[in-house]
Amino acid sequence: MVSPVLPSCGVLSPLGLQAVRLSPGFWGDRVRLGREVVIAHCRDWMEREGWIGNFRSPGGPHRGREFSDSEIYKLLEAMAWAGDPGLPELAGTVAAAQEPDGYLNTRWGGARYTDLEWGHELYCYGHLIQAGVARLRAHGEDELTGVVRRAADHVCDRFMDTAQTCGHPVVEMALVELYRATGAERYLEMARRFVERRGLPALGEIPFGRGYFQDDVPVRQARVLRGHAVRALYLACGAVDVAVETGDAELLKAVEAQWERAVARRTHLTGGMGSRHTDESFGEDFELPPDRAYAETCAGVASVMLCHRLLLATGDARYADLAERTMFNVLAAAPALDGRSFFYSNPLQVRVPAEPPAGINPAAEGGLRSPWFEVSCCPNNIARTFASLPAYVATGDASGVQIHHHASGEIRNGGLVLRVETGYPWSGGVTVHVVEGGPGRVSLRVPPWARGAVLSYGGPRQDASGRGPDGRGVAGEPSGRLSRGDDSGWVSREAAPGYAVADGDWRPGDVIRLDLPVRPRWTGPGRGIDALRGCAAVERGPIVYCAESPGDEPPLAEVDVLPGPLTEREAEGVVELETEALLHSPGQTAWPYTTLPGQAPPAGSGPSGADPDPAGPDPAGTDPVNAEPAGAGATGPDDGRKITLRLVPYHRWGNRGPATMRVWLPMAE
Amino acid sequence: MVSPVLPSCGVLSPLGLQAVRLSPGFWGDRVRLGREVVIAHCRDWMEREGWIGNFRSPGGPHRGREFSDSEIYKLLEAMAWAGDPGLPELAGTVAAAQEPDGYLNTRWGGARYTDLEWGHELYCYGHLIQAGVARLRAHGEDELTGVVRRAADHVCDRFMDTAQTCGHPVVEMALVELYRATGAERYLEMARRFVERRGLPALGEIPFGRGYFQDDVPVRQARVLRGHAVRALYLACGAVDVAVETGDAELLKAVEAQWERAVARRTHLTGGMGSRHTDESFGEDFELPPDRAYAETCAGVASVMLCHRLLLATGDARYADLAERTMFNVLAAAPALDGRSFFYSNPLQVRVPAEPPAGINPAAEGGLRSPWFEVSCCPNNIARTFASLPAYVATGDASGVQIHHHASGEIRNGGLVLRVETGYPWSGGVTVHVVEGGPGRVSLRVPPWARGAVLSYGGPRQDASGRGPDGRGVAGEPSGRLSRGDDSGWVSREAAPGYAVADGDWRPGDVIRLDLPVRPRWTGPGRGIDALRGCAAVERGPIVYCAESPGDEPPLAEVDVLPGPLTEREAEGVVELETEALLHSPGQTAWPYTTLPGQAPPAGSGPSGADPDPAGPDPAGTDPVNAEPAGAGATGPDDGRKITLRLVPYHRWGNRGPATMRVWLPMAE
Repeated sequence: MVSPVLPSCGVLSPLGLQAVRLSPGFWGDRVRLGREVVIAHCRDWMEREGWIGNFRSPGGPHRGREFSDSEIYKLLEAMAWAGDPGLPELAGTVAAAQEPDGYLNTRWGGARYTDLEWGHELYCYGHLIQAGVARLRAHGEDELTGVVRRAADHVCDRFMDTAQTCGHPVVEMALVELYRATGAERYLEMARRFVERRGLPALGEIPFGRGYFQDDVPVRQARVLRGHAVRALYLACGAVDVAVETGDAELLKAVEAQWERAVARRTHLTGGMGSRHTDESFGEDFELPPDRAYAETCAGVASVMLCHRLLLATGDARYADLAERTMFNVLAAAPALDGRSFFYSNPLQVRVPAEPPAGINPAAEGGLRSPWFEVSCCPNNIARTFASLPAYVATGDASGVQIHHHASGEIRNGGLVLRVETGYPWSGGVTVHVVEGGPGRVSLRVPPWARGAVLSYGGPRQDASGRGPDGRGVAGEPSGRLSRGDDSGWVSREAAPGYAVADGDWRPGDVIRLDLPVRPRWTGPGRGIDALRGCAAVERGPIVYCAESPGDEPPLAEVDVLPGPLTEREAEGVVELETEALLHSPGQTAWPYTTLPGQAPPAGSGPSGADPDPAGPDPAGTDPVNAEPAGAGATGPDDGRKITLRLVPYHRWGNRGPATMRVWLPMAE
Repeated sequence: MVSPVLPSCGVLSPLGLQAVRLSPGFWGDRVRLGREVVIAHCRDWMEREGWIGNFRSPGGPHRGREFSDSEIYKLLEAMAWAGDPGLPELAGTVAAAQEPDGYLNTRWGGARYTDLEWGHELYCYGHLIQAGVARLRAHGEDELTGVVRRAADHVCDRFMDTAQTCGHPVVEMALVELYRATGAERYLEMARRFVERRGLPALGEIPFGRGYFQDDVPVRQARVLRGHAVRALYLACGAVDVAVETGDAELLKAVEAQWERAVARRTHLTGGMGSRHTDESFGEDFELPPDRAYAETCAGVASVMLCHRLLLATGDARYADLAERTMFNVLAAAPALDGRSFFYSNPLQVRVPAEPPAGINPAAEGGLRSPWFEVSCCPNNIARTFASLPAYVATGDASGVQIHHHASGEIRNGGLVLRVETGYPWSGGVTVHVVEGGPGRVSLRVPPWARGAVLSYGGPRQDASGRGPDGRGVAGEPSGRLSRGDDSGWVSREAAPGYAVADGDWRPGDVIRLDLPVRPRWTGPGRGIDALRGCAAVERGPIVYCAESPGDEPPLAEVDVLPGPLTEREAEGVVELETEALLHSPGQTAWPYTTLPGQAPPAGSGPSGADPDPAGPDPAGTDPVNAEPAGAGATGPDDGRKITLRLVPYHRWGNRGPATMRVWLPMAE
């Protein structure tokens, strides 16, 4: 089966790329963009920057960072899933650089494994192996898969009986998948040892501390995802894979608990993970300032990978819920609409309209998208994730098929063939047409915000033209009008968050319809998140919205929202929203802190007690550090004047030139 | 005169270390701690780490970072001001490493000036020159000053007719001071050129961008302090020095405007500057999250240096106001009470009680103080600043003496000798006894928070025993009782923020008394600071307070304050405060964002319009991402139970073991 993750057991089973094909629509368009634009874009940049050239002269001077080989491997994985005809040539370039014993690295050739903390050699193998697994499943054995087997065998030979591991996890999940693809158990055993020896510790001290690469505590003892977000999430993926294949329920439970705490305390509204820029790390619980949200694109990719593994292992909808949130608000946000520039970091607030550098962006700041980066994991990670995205959409089990992500396309499971039609996420109707029938249960995920969702099925057979309750045809029609057990023969019932289940012996022309109420809603932060106090955000269905202000006009620093009705309007095929807001005059001119009014201390209290001003607190209510005339001190906010504030889907922001942006909007008092 | 800054013109003139001597008290104790503990502490660590040893084998392998030489120079400056008898030996060690043409650097010897962006060679000279100026003024010519002159001449020879400069400013202000100390005009010209060529640009591109080292815009065109905070502030110091000596009013105005905007938008309540950890930079306007406040100790030192220069040039009290805030809440906070460990970063919130590493702290995080760091500028900077601190306390001009910082001690200006007695900042009375008399104006700074301050003078002569309105003697007596022109002969009048002025032909025994109302007060953030919305802080006089919770008991994440009366109590000689607060039960267990209650959209609005739940908004008011039972979703805050929350001076926090801490306290709704 053609799927990036194929566990040998678990509650749900992937259906894979041949069984799920997406047609035009939100995700289908992106799969196509990835295949037709992003892959070539990445290859061109890596050729231009000499990262591919490194393989042509492995002894020569190395271009790019020490882990640049891994970028070529991520791209090879994307090409394998996409069936890109350029793969064999690129794989041949890689193969030529492999040493006779299987070692392959263009940077460290002369000094193998001398810096396991930062050298990234095993990390590079991890991505190489993932590319090989993709090739093996999508195509079969070839030069690339041979390279990969030799490299994996070399890793086992070299590391099986050591206590060593790599500063950057990924080889763990890659080895488990190679075991799944080949049946060779030593790969699983090597992965298991890499997971288990981490945190004993297995690596040296580094300035960021061992928590940075999760070497502070053994995986099964850790209580939360911590340190470098991508490293933490990749390691968790590998741990789940090992747990599933070795039947290690304790290890699986440990990762589930880490995920749960990270989601409850260390995750942005968008699903973005990682707060700190310095070490690209999670930061502490509730350390979620929107302006400095790092929320790296690759951490989003890794989070979706982890959610998918946990979903397969447990069948618990909450993992698909977070995956959906992250897909729509991190993965979809990263590439520009034309697929030729990318966000590396996905902050939830940008205060200054920023022009990105024209070429390579040396920093990972999130002002505008850049075509390439010195560390360019994100574009390649988007390429491989979009290329394999249909494999995340639906799964099967003994009882039938589960649709986790609503996207137009075709799904096959055994004899059952379903055609999904939907305008999701812009409209909430999802219609499943049975193309080829048979008995089975069809489960459709109902996201947690979709209270009052309605599932309808049964009823009169449709003719082949497909007229009837069609996802597109009735998108404008309130689903509240759907009859509940009336004389049309339809069965409609409310579906609680989780999975809406339709059982039947399906025949061609049968229709199952899910109506999700994608009403816009105001969302507030829990009490723990200090940086968001007094703010609200807007969501609609799975989409997080933001105020985007090109040229900072209106200036977003001066806007408070009135969280009342949200008006919808269609623009460029997407739903935008409008809210009332107050626009204030520019604020502070002197010292940005003021004495709170009406806070007189009790008379004569305390050891100093000096109170030569019995009139009480400062009547001006200001406390400028500057000894300027009173009027020039800090000014309080004015009342503001009412404006209509436009809100756009977060994933669309930054496509209209330099702008300010914020997801969390201060509420007028 | 013995002073770190001696402008040849300007509104105010320094009095220097021989004219201002501090006696025991807040600052006098710290000057002594610096002299008796910190200097030896720094020297021991730098000997142990081999940074001093680098000078003994300048060709050998280099220990420490590329700028480690500068740490020895900062310490030499401290030793010079403090009259430390160990200086000649250490200076001799340094001198032995100087090359015949004046070049001196233990790291770059073989590859001079090959990396001006990061090499720090001119930066090291800057600190060397400051040490030499200190030695010249405090002692006179010796081996060290010879080394410094040769090095400075080498810099002029090498760089005068280039377009180059250093990635880290400091040499500019050092060269101006050497000009002031020696009269050699080429040093001033070299400094002027370094200032002017910056931003043309003069340096190469770096990943952080040229704004990091202020090479993005010429100094006189820049509108705000930006980039790496210490670099920005040091450069501004040099620009002021050049402006003053060359009569460049435009350049001075430019720096004043940059300071003003940085203070209004980029400064923490403590006076701390610098928000970002990644590049130790200011960040954007209003980007002031308290938990990630970098607020490097050295940036505090540099800010005090800049404020002092601007104060001397303009006489404007606002510069002394910010200097005071920074001295009490950054400089005093950095060293532990025993002077043997230091904060590098001074965040305004710490969420997790942290044990610092036992030895060298590789990171600059601000959980607890560390004895030493890989980059150990902060301890040495504290040493040199404390050693020269009396020079910041008072100035003179033609009319008399100005006391900017209230500290017990003795001040001489011409024939006038004043003895200051005060319990400041714990009590607000400042008494100035005239020890040796003469005509002149005595000006005492009244901080901006001290509305209702009272100045009293004249009246009956005091006898030599000093009985009478003594700062310590009447600290407990409300100054409101001071008579205003009553029959005691005293003149009392309210003194507005700025300077309270007493003119007279002073005779020994005369007394001038200033009463500053150091009442505790609640302070709020201006509207622009997103991260502080809904929070309040407590100040009392110049002191910022914080809640410190050893072992996080009570858990500060669960505490909201009720900003009402603040109760004072003395503890260990300092004033602590208490406020009422609400302690809530632990919060979030699932998804940390919730749908705001009562936010129903208009019925049937928008293109989707699906509203199968006419009852309106989600009755539970929650929106967990997790498809768990309703009760397990995000929980709202409970009402909390009333507790008394202890507040300690911010500069005292972290002396009682691992603790959580926050300056900005969420207000109960």
